[in-house]
Amino acid sequence: KMAEQEELNAATFDTLFIILSAIIISFMQGGLALLEAGMVASKNVQHILMKNLFDVCFGTIAFWLVGYAFAFGDDTGIGFIGMSEFAGIWPDIVNRDWFFLWTFCTVTASIISGALAERTDFRAYAWFVLVECAIVFPVLLHWGWHPDGWLLHLDPISYKDFAGAGLVHFHSGTMAFMGAWLVGPRLGRFDPAVDQSRFKPHNVPLYILGVFALWMGWYSFNTGSNFGISRGGYEVVSVIAANTTLSGTLGAVTCFVIESYLNRKELTYDLEALANGVLSGLVAICGGCNSMYPWGAVLTGIGAGISFILFKYLCFWIKVDDPLGASAVHGAAGFWGVFMAGLLNKETGGMPMQVAAQFIGLASVLAWSVCWSLAIWLPCKWMGIMRCPPEEEEIGQDVHLHGGSGYRYHMDALPGEVIETC
Amino acid sequence: KMAEQEELNAATFDTLFIILSAIIISFMQGGLALLEAGMVASKNVQHILMKNLFDVCFGTIAFWLVGYAFAFGDDTGIGFIGMSEFAGIWPDIVNRDWFFLWTFCTVTASIISGALAERTDFRAYAWFVLVECAIVFPVLLHWGWHPDGWLLHLDPISYKDFAGAGLVHFHSGTMAFMGAWLVGPRLGRFDPAVDQSRFKPHNVPLYILGVFALWMGWYSFNTGSNFGISRGGYEVVSVIAANTTLSGTLGAVTCFVIESYLNRKELTYDLEALANGVLSGLVAICGGCNSMYPWGAVLTGIGAGISFILFKYLCFWIKVDDPLGASAVHGAAGFWGVFMAGLLNKETGGMPMQVAAQFIGLASVLAWSVCWSLAIWLPCKWMGIMRCPPEEEEIGQDVHLHGGSGYRYHMDALPGEVIETC
Amino acid sequence: KMAEQEELNAATFDTLFIILSAIIISFMQGGLALLEAGMVASKNVQHILMKNLFDVCFGTIAFWLVGYAFAFGDDTGIGFIGMSEFAGIWPDIVNRDWFFLWTFCTVTASIISGALAERTDFRAYAWFVLVECAIVFPVLLHWGWHPDGWLLHLDPISYKDFAGAGLVHFHSGTMAFMGAWLVGPRLGRFDPAVDQSRFKPHNVPLYILGVFALWMGWYSFNTGSNFGISRGGYEVVSVIAANTTLSGTLGAVTCFVIESYLNRKELTYDLEALANGVLSGLVAICGGCNSMYPWGAVLTGIGAGISFILFKYLCFWIKVDDPLGASAVHGAAGFWGVFMAGLLNKETGGMPMQVAAQFIGLASVLAWSVCWSLAIWLPCKWMGIMRCPPEEEEIGQDVHLHGGSGYRYHMDALPGEVIETC
Repeated sequence: KMAEQEELNAATFDTLFIILSAIIISFMQGGLALLEAGMVASKNVQHILMKNLFDVCFGTIAFWLVGYAFAFGDDTGIGFIGMSEFAGIWPDIVNRDWFFLWTFCTVTASIISGALAERTDFRAYAWFVLVECAIVFPVLLHWGWHPDGWLLHLDPISYKDFAGAGLVHFHSGTMAFMGAWLVGPRLGRFDPAVDQSRFKPHNVPLYILGVFALWMGWYSFNTGSNFGISRGGYEVVSVIAANTTLSGTLGAVTCFVIESYLNRKELTYDLEALANGVLSGLVAICGGCNSMYPWGAVLTGIGAGISFILFKYLCFWIKVDDPLGASAVHGAAGFWGVFMAGLLNKETGGMPMQVAAQFIGLASVLAWSVCWSLAIWLPCKWMGIMRCPPEEEEIGQDVHLHGGSGYRYHMDALPGEVIETC
Repeated sequence: KMAEQEELNAATFDTLFIILSAIIISFMQGGLALLEAGMVASKNVQHILMKNLFDVCFGTIAFWLVGYAFAFGDDTGIGFIGMSEFAGIWPDIVNRDWFFLWTFCTVTASIISGALAERTDFRAYAWFVLVECAIVFPVLLHWGWHPDGWLLHLDPISYKDFAGAGLVHFHSGTMAFMGAWLVGPRLGRFDPAVDQSRFKPHNVPLYILGVFALWMGWYSFNTGSNFGISRGGYEVVSVIAANTTLSGTLGAVTCFVIESYLNRKELTYDLEALANGVLSGLVAICGGCNSMYPWGAVLTGIGAGISFILFKYLCFWIKVDDPLGASAVHGAAGFWGVFMAGLLNKETGGMPMQVAAQFIGLASVLAWSVCWSLAIWLPCKWMGIMRCPPEEEEIGQDVHLHGGSGYRYHMDALPGEVIETC
Repeated sequence: KMAEQEELNAATFDTLFIILSAIIISFMQGGLALLEAGMVASKNVQHILMKNLFDVCFGTIAFWLVGYAFAFGDDTGIGFIGMSEFAGIWPDIVNRDWFFLWTFCTVTASIISGALAERTDFRAYAWFVLVECAIVFPVLLHWGWHPDGWLLHLDPISYKDFAGAGLVHFHSGTMAFMGAWLVGPRLGRFDPAVDQSRFKPHNVPLYILGVFALWMGWYSFNTGSNFGISRGGYEVVSVIAANTTLSGTLGAVTCFVIESYLNRKELTYDLEALANGVLSGLVAICGGCNSMYPWGAVLTGIGAGISFILFKYLCFWIKVDDPLGASAVHGAAGFWGVFMAGLLNKETGGMPMQVAAQFIGLASVLAWSVCWSLAIWLPCKWMGIMRCPPEEEEIGQDVHLHGGSGYRYHMDALPGEVIETC
């Protein structure tokens, strides 16, 4: 009787924690929408918002029909893919797990959308979303989080990636980079004859608010990844929250200091560096937030900031145009986070085989993401539907596809007099 | 001793869950404010925000003094109204229940405000808020959620409306429709000589962010309606979260596909259809989110999207001007949701008497809402305070009532040079 | 065995509650950023957002290295300061407490930033943030919330300040007032020759959305301050939620009614009065939300609204320019809240010694805050780095320090035609 009661308490604790975490994570979609809407040109703001809503809504169908089955259905034998629990045919309690992982799946798709912003054809994007949520991301989840996944059975030490620095972020960063590269830069981007300030964010407050919304969601993303809080889990949940804070803020501090030093002649401060630094630090700590000492989180954050800046300038140098910086924030910092999760693990940290396991994980995520990027985008390119027509890009996707601008302001010129700006 | 401990655990679980749910629901006010602010013309943005803040603040007083007593006080005998627990005179733990239901009451009032936007006189609106939160909504809660409410004692099968598809949404949609009809369309609306694009949203990012904020809140709205998670409640909470997701996204997909088909000549995509489709699906599933199989949630969402579109075009056809579409989103989809909650209930679904009970519920909500709409608005009409003066509507409520526009931008024309647009 | 199980359940309940509360509180940073961004001129919007992100990120380092140790380390003997647990060297579970109090510390710094907006030099601000988060606020926490703090050992009755009406709000309001006074008014402020409407909020929707975000966070701020929900704590948590609602809404109603009366000739409604009234009521109830009857919360809210208005006009009269009204919202209403927490405490309310204890608390918070304000700002003034150069203030901090405006809009003039406003 008492053991039964304990069992019920544990299930109640864990479900309460997981459901509330997933609810808070669901607002990361709002955060990503703000971030992306704020950073694109105002002439494309409706279109990027539609892409975000679209991937949540259509991605849900893909993840419900087949994605969850591939990720968490019974393994087919070699730890590669699951093959049961399709289309909601599962016990009631599995709805909890589906709901929680659904937030991860749709966030992953939304992250990638940023790199494709302002010039990708909507048909190609729609196709990408369905494949990503049906197969690409779910199979990675199976490898790294399903109890039978092959990355958890590496010999002698398993791959460590607690909240998805590799499975979620390095993956989405890689897809973002591949997509941005294949679709090509926006018209005029990197062209010395064109004033590059037109590629600056059109609405900084929206963008920064997006960072704060994501930050809140990230706490539930990381603590929720403990997948429960019962049976003593409350201690590790506390550690995760503090480590997440340390890494995020240290990432910001690092980026801010470096960029302020680089801009010391113009005497400007770099708000974007603070914002992307926070996100980079939050990305990196996903890997080992549960298993690091606080100083490990500090080092993870500092390195994440550096990784972000290096990759940002690399993209610049090789002329890959990622409007949101998703490949630097999620790809580079995610890579670093997986590495640090192995290097600084409280138990296995420093063992060469642990570091090797991390690199096996990274290499397999990389290979999987690159192959699928090619498989998704090349056919679109051949069919000529990957990139929107130049006139759409010039005039803006809102006028071309949504019947007008997303903004219509009346402002008063003199008290009482109204001018219509739109 | 052990039973006592179990009792305490259950109360702690339930309170923890209810309080955190209510806190998250409270942000739906922010979501509604965003939605409404984004969709009106920029010249009325301060006024609609004031109406939202006003109804939360003044509605609270009404719901605290008498509303809660009418809703959850001891029944007077026939299941029509409660008559105890006025003005906070209740045991400490009742504060939890008051707080949770307070979020429902003020959200209901805010929903209705959207249909009245841009031309309703503030005095009439203030009067409406007080009556709505003091009497109209509380009595409906008594009918459908108080243990002695008459809708729960229908013979042989009670009315099923878990999270308020009828009591909250069909009610508020009906009030919205009646209000929009009685106050009349905005100047120039439906006038072929006037460019109708002036009635488009003035700020799409605010509007879409509102949808995401509401979406997060909706999860707590629906799971919180289980009013606890102890004693095995964690399973149904999991089911609710997944069903809510399915219905919301299927509503969006349905609307998007239909509207894209209707607009296939202009080749435009309809962001509003996605957004309102999500909301319609979320509205409809309130009815049976706890008692449906997943495929039931899918059907509920699809039907909600169709209901929304049909009612939207009906309003257009009969020239009822509901700026936010509240009557289509909440009224039509709420109606559908109540019907489906009866039709697809796991236990009683398909029984004719269950469907009959749903229609009795709908008819009584309809009659109650229509009568109160007439009782509230007709006297205002007679006194000439229902609609603001035409010059206020023309120049905008912000200039007329708030001393100027809600926006004052400085933008830079050339690097370094500043032009003042306001 | 059973006692052990109880112990584990209690720890799990409390951690679950504290961690989720802190996660929700963390979004108050987003709320403050919105509030401040919306209220300043559009030419300073990036800079104020950077200050907010900066204080969270750099303040974290200060609070982690030394701040927490000063606040909650072992007392050095007289209840003045703690001196252990530096730099994350603490047991795992302490991470929970650090995380929770970190949200309080960084919110306090952000509140103060509003009063300094639009003309403070960034270097002086950076210096202030580090001192505030390292020493000033932590020591206050030690006095009032550490079990050995001297304010909790006043004889015969201890100082009562449950969620920080004095320690957080009266403190930050005092710092805000001192900072605003020392840095001086913005150019042209209070100058009859200058159109004062240029000091109105540049974006009212952002500002009001900030109020809603803060409101949600405030519930977790106040309920979370119970620091647990186990062992019967669920009752008081329920009381706190209801009292917080009552005081916030009554504050708004009071402000709105008074300001509407004062503006009765112009026939305008005051949206800002509603918004600041909510915040004032929420500030004041922090003091006694756990220990008052509901009518006490009502009186606290009404008085908070009055305090806000009186202090707002006082600032106006003595020409202290606080752009966000932080000194009136947090200072005046915080003062009132501490007083009411003593006067209306269910157990000790009305005892003269309780009221005396409250005034001792207020006086010591005031003295501490004033002294540190002078110590922080006077050296900056002497070095000439407190106030930004007049040309920066004129042209805007965004153009001067961030390379251009935070907004870049394209709007369409006629369907299909695009004009570039920036």
